[in-house]
Amino acid sequence: MIKVGIAGVTGYTGIELVKLISNHPGAKLCTVSSNSYKGKALTEVFPSMRGFETLICEDLSVQSLARKLDVIFLALPHKVSMQHVPQFFESKIKIIDLSADFRFSDALAYESAYQEHTAKHLLKESVYGLCEIYKDKIKAAGLIGNPGCYPTSILLPLIPLLKENLIQPAGIISDSKSGVSGAGRSLSLSSHFCEVNESFAPYKIGNHRHTPEINEILSLQSRQKISITFVPHLLPLTRGMLSTIYADAKNDTSEDTIREAYASYYGEEPFIRILKKMPSRQFPMSKEPIPVISEFIFVKKQIKSSLFPPLTTS
Amino acid sequence: MIKVGIAGVTGYTGIELVKLISNHPGAKLCTVSSNSYKGKALTEVFPSMRGFETLICEDLSVQSLARKLDVIFLALPHKVSMQHVPQFFESKIKIIDLSADFRFSDALAYESAYQEHTAKHLLKESVYGLCEIYKDKIKAAGLIGNPGCYPTSILLPLIPLLKENLIQPAGIISDSKSGVSGAGRSLSLSSHFCEVNESFAPYKIGNHRHTPEINEILSLQSRQKISITFVPHLLPLTRGMLSTIYADAKNDTSEDTIREAYASYYGEEPFIRILKKMPSRQFPMSKEPIPVISEFIFVKKQIKSSLFPPLTTS
Amino acid sequence: MIKVGIAGVTGYTGIELVKLISNHPGAKLCTVSSNSYKGKALTEVFPSMRGFETLICEDLSVQSLARKLDVIFLALPHKVSMQHVPQFFESKIKIIDLSADFRFSDALAYESAYQEHTAKHLLKESVYGLCEIYKDKIKAAGLIGNPGCYPTSILLPLIPLLKENLIQPAGIISDSKSGVSGAGRSLSLSSHFCEVNESFAPYKIGNHRHTPEINEILSLQSRQKISITFVPHLLPLTRGMLSTIYADAKNDTSEDTIREAYASYYGEEPFIRILKKMPSRQFPMSKEPIPVISEFIFVKKQIKSSLFPPLTTS
Amino acid sequence: MIKVGIAGVTGYTGIELVKLISNHPGAKLCTVSSNSYKGKALTEVFPSMRGFETLICEDLSVQSLARKLDVIFLALPHKVSMQHVPQFFESKIKIIDLSADFRFSDALAYESAYQEHTAKHLLKESVYGLCEIYKDKIKAAGLIGNPGCYPTSILLPLIPLLKENLIQPAGIISDSKSGVSGAGRSLSLSSHFCEVNESFAPYKIGNHRHTPEINEILSLQSRQKISITFVPHLLPLTRGMLSTIYADAKNDTSEDTIREAYASYYGEEPFIRILKKMPSRQFPMSKEPIPVISEFIFVKKQIKSSLFPPLTTS
Repeated sequence: MIKVGIAGVTGYTGIELVKLISNHPGAKLCTVSSNSYKGKALTEVFPSMRGFETLICEDLSVQSLARKLDVIFLALPHKVSMQHVPQFFESKIKIIDLSADFRFSDALAYESAYQEHTAKHLLKESVYGLCEIYKDKIKAAGLIGNPGCYPTSILLPLIPLLKENLIQPAGIISDSKSGVSGAGRSLSLSSHFCEVNESFAPYKIGNHRHTPEINEILSLQSRQKISITFVPHLLPLTRGMLSTIYADAKNDTSEDTIREAYASYYGEEPFIRILKKMPSRQFPMSKEPIPVISEFIFVKKQIKSSLFPPLTTS
Repeated sequence: MIKVGIAGVTGYTGIELVKLISNHPGAKLCTVSSNSYKGKALTEVFPSMRGFETLICEDLSVQSLARKLDVIFLALPHKVSMQHVPQFFESKIKIIDLSADFRFSDALAYESAYQEHTAKHLLKESVYGLCEIYKDKIKAAGLIGNPGCYPTSILLPLIPLLKENLIQPAGIISDSKSGVSGAGRSLSLSSHFCEVNESFAPYKIGNHRHTPEINEILSLQSRQKISITFVPHLLPLTRGMLSTIYADAKNDTSEDTIREAYASYYGEEPFIRILKKMPSRQFPMSKEPIPVISEFIFVKKQIKSSLFPPLTTS
Repeated sequence: MIKVGIAGVTGYTGIELVKLISNHPGAKLCTVSSNSYKGKALTEVFPSMRGFETLICEDLSVQSLARKLDVIFLALPHKVSMQHVPQFFESKIKIIDLSADFRFSDALAYESAYQEHTAKHLLKESVYGLCEIYKDKIKAAGLIGNPGCYPTSILLPLIPLLKENLIQPAGIISDSKSGVSGAGRSLSLSSHFCEVNESFAPYKIGNHRHTPEINEILSLQSRQKISITFVPHLLPLTRGMLSTIYADAKNDTSEDTIREAYASYYGEEPFIRILKKMPSRQFPMSKEPIPVISEFIFVKKQIKSSLFPPLTTS
Repeated sequence: MIKVGIAGVTGYTGIELVKLISNHPGAKLCTVSSNSYKGKALTEVFPSMRGFETLICEDLSVQSLARKLDVIFLALPHKVSMQHVPQFFESKIKIIDLSADFRFSDALAYESAYQEHTAKHLLKESVYGLCEIYKDKIKAAGLIGNPGCYPTSILLPLIPLLKENLIQPAGIISDSKSGVSGAGRSLSLSSHFCEVNESFAPYKIGNHRHTPEINEILSLQSRQKISITFVPHLLPLTRGMLSTIYADAKNDTSEDTIREAYASYYGEEPFIRILKKMPSRQFPMSKEPIPVISEFIFVKKQIKSSLFPPLTTS
């Protein structure tokens, strides 16, 4: 039984982790921390979390946690995460960080998008937690930087096509749409019910912080400089994400070669589902419980492909 | 042409007033104030408000406003409103206050629900702005305290029934449901998209501040002490309100006597619509653009009647 | 391992059953039938239902099913259900019927609300499937008529109060609000997105077919004639239900006697959660995953209590 | 006063027309027809349409209408529209057809997307009703084929850029998102509340019937063959549309040359608003009441531009 802790348990990703871990046959949730609800039982903050009456939101103390746990999930905001990671790393607990702080291998790329990095020496220790791509490295790593939600939805469909030389590396576009939970539980006018409800809008065109994350991984995976056009939009729904991706196909690329690539990369993956070919083709819906790589189509050698993970993290 | 100003123009009631006044043939919007957007053009804050490019959000200065205006609408939070009303009142501008500060004639009732009242001497000058009931007084008044949203939805259907002795004064229940805009544009977890969306919940059972406002007006109108049971609920939609009201009918009350009462009180009112009798009966929908007093039914001498105003104010 | 079949698998209750049964450690889903999708794999109709590729939607043939199954769930429309139940009953399979056809013990009550009953002789064999109340009978029964969604939300909070003589049996009101999934997957203007979205409305006031079902069970349980006032409303959300219930308390009833009754009836029930007392009181939210009996309050000896099951069936 | 009639008044576009025409100072709504609600007063079908108690839904009889009207709006389904247009055309009433039947000048393009055209001889008489582009022709025409909703959102931003040679004509992509009202009031599983709510999905990728309409007008306007990639998506909201458009800029195109083109084409247009340049840049929101051409950005010579009309027609 793997002993698991969650730091920052009272945000949307924290509570989602509670549900996943508490239903996992090989893991046991042993400790949780929360800055905002310190001293309260988890069931007081989330009344529906039956069976966790004895789990009290603690202070985030590395030393006491290190003795009790095999794995710590950090569901903390970026910048806060990197303040705690070095100590956890030294104590040899496996760290799965859900913030942006350890997603980048290039500190400058991180710093131009976020802020000064105060634990740069650990970036080379960190593995990018995209499990379908870095499975073996993730198993061995002591520090995992979990991917952003938009990057997950864009990297999974693009990596096989770039690595197998099926699309042109230039001119890739991702038109992405996210539910509101991706912005977290912190208050802002842009997450206020009356502002979001019954509306739809793009935001941060040209300067969303997930862009350098996407480009770094695509470049590493395809061994060439990739720079995509990424336009995020906000959907009036809580949870779900869908990216519609446009790329120019190479000359000898066909629907079948693309399907073969996806089948070989993801055919056995439990969290990815590849939709059927025509005529029984179905389009992906963001509410489906399993992420999907959808049917793609060819229009004058452009390819459109969509994927969505049902859980939006940021 | 009546010269109108709006103080606190950048909240949800403020911007709604801009739309109503700017389309009104007898009124001209001359000045607006906003604490949060001081110095900005109204069109910068609300880009769709074309034609108001020259209207700049000003400081709330009574002296300069008094010279320019016939009427000032105060779309300010309670407590802030009563700080400005005395000066406006002296300057003889007509004041329409949308906060709770001048809705009560009983200062103690106000203070037990809100806070200390700092302009008590003006409570006796103020008229409760429920236009179908206090039309003549409103025309003559210098200070109008506009009703809350829940009270409007409950007072209009109950006043005729109580005044005409058609229902028992004891045991009245209003089960009321409101959209989110009634809580205004200020940030709070209870207006956060992911908390409200796809859910429905009661709140403040037994201690909502609109209860004493409802009871005061019902008691004044029916010349007896009325104390209703009021349970508010939050709907996952932006705008609209519906109250389902339960009361015990008096022995000789019939659907026809109730219909006659409503027809005589509201038959000519432009903002109230009385739904048809069976068999072509329709039920009210909160999204309808005109407030409605719906069909009522008799079950063992209980009466259920619903009204909703499409605009929720607080 | 209990071998389970589902008839009418492609409606909203059918697919929900697939999820529940497929995650149940003691049950195995062996066969499904669907009139609309005959011959298709379950995964073709519901692409997210991985692992059910070999489960084909069959014809509803009692004889072949009887050999294969221990339990059959009928997720069929009322009237259709009672055409199949007699044959299943003879074949000794346990039948759990989700339609209204076997909820009533009084055939006349059924017929006045629905239509002629064509299997009246089985009504006396059927047990009302409200598991917290009829647990032992359900275990022994060959035919179970599962409760409607509104009745579930109203019966559970009222039965302990009536049986323990804590409230007056006359004048009970349930103001109930339901999500749209309760109306099923069949098309109608009242489930059309643009009609429901951003609106809220009562419907079928005074003549909803769940009223006699509620009254029959309340009367049986409390050994007196009960006739409640029931007003259903439609919420603009998919799933969830909340009933706000009003009753007159008996003279010696207090919050504590009510809490004791609920604790003794439901304290150990896994599907019911009783919310905490003041001051840490929380109100129920329809999106919570576990049904809740909420805090109740006393206003002039009236009691308000709410319960919601997250799954709306009809 | 222009005398106006509406055929097919009880669909979503019909009722929207009632609101627009009844508020128009130069028009009078004289007659309405409806197949589904024949003989009923308009206020019976739409209770909030006060003041139209005497307007009865009539049969669609060309002869009687021709005597009474100056203009007839046909809010009918395609195929039905072209059965009535020839008679109206002979009677010299001005016809504004909201269906797809008279949008095309090329009958083959129409027939490959819809069905056989039974009034081909009138296609050359019809003017495409995109008022910002064909204003003068619309004034003079006897028959106007009103644009589809998606085409409106795509043509307005692209026409100036293509005519002024600012973008490459090849490789244009429109990733478009529509509310549900665009699909009309007819029942279908894809407009069922529970299917649409809390989800987002693309549909008809590669074969939506608005694609040939878009391509025909873009080709006519730019005097070259244009064939765009168009991917429609369904938003979980009632009303509003947003298209995010991608194109390759020509070498000497800059943001300023694009802004100049938009200012010169649309600067004076009452129904188009061009959002401000950085730094006060705002992104379009689909709920804004005035259609918008948004800020565009340059990323490696790609241009992204969005427009949305708040009224979705089909």
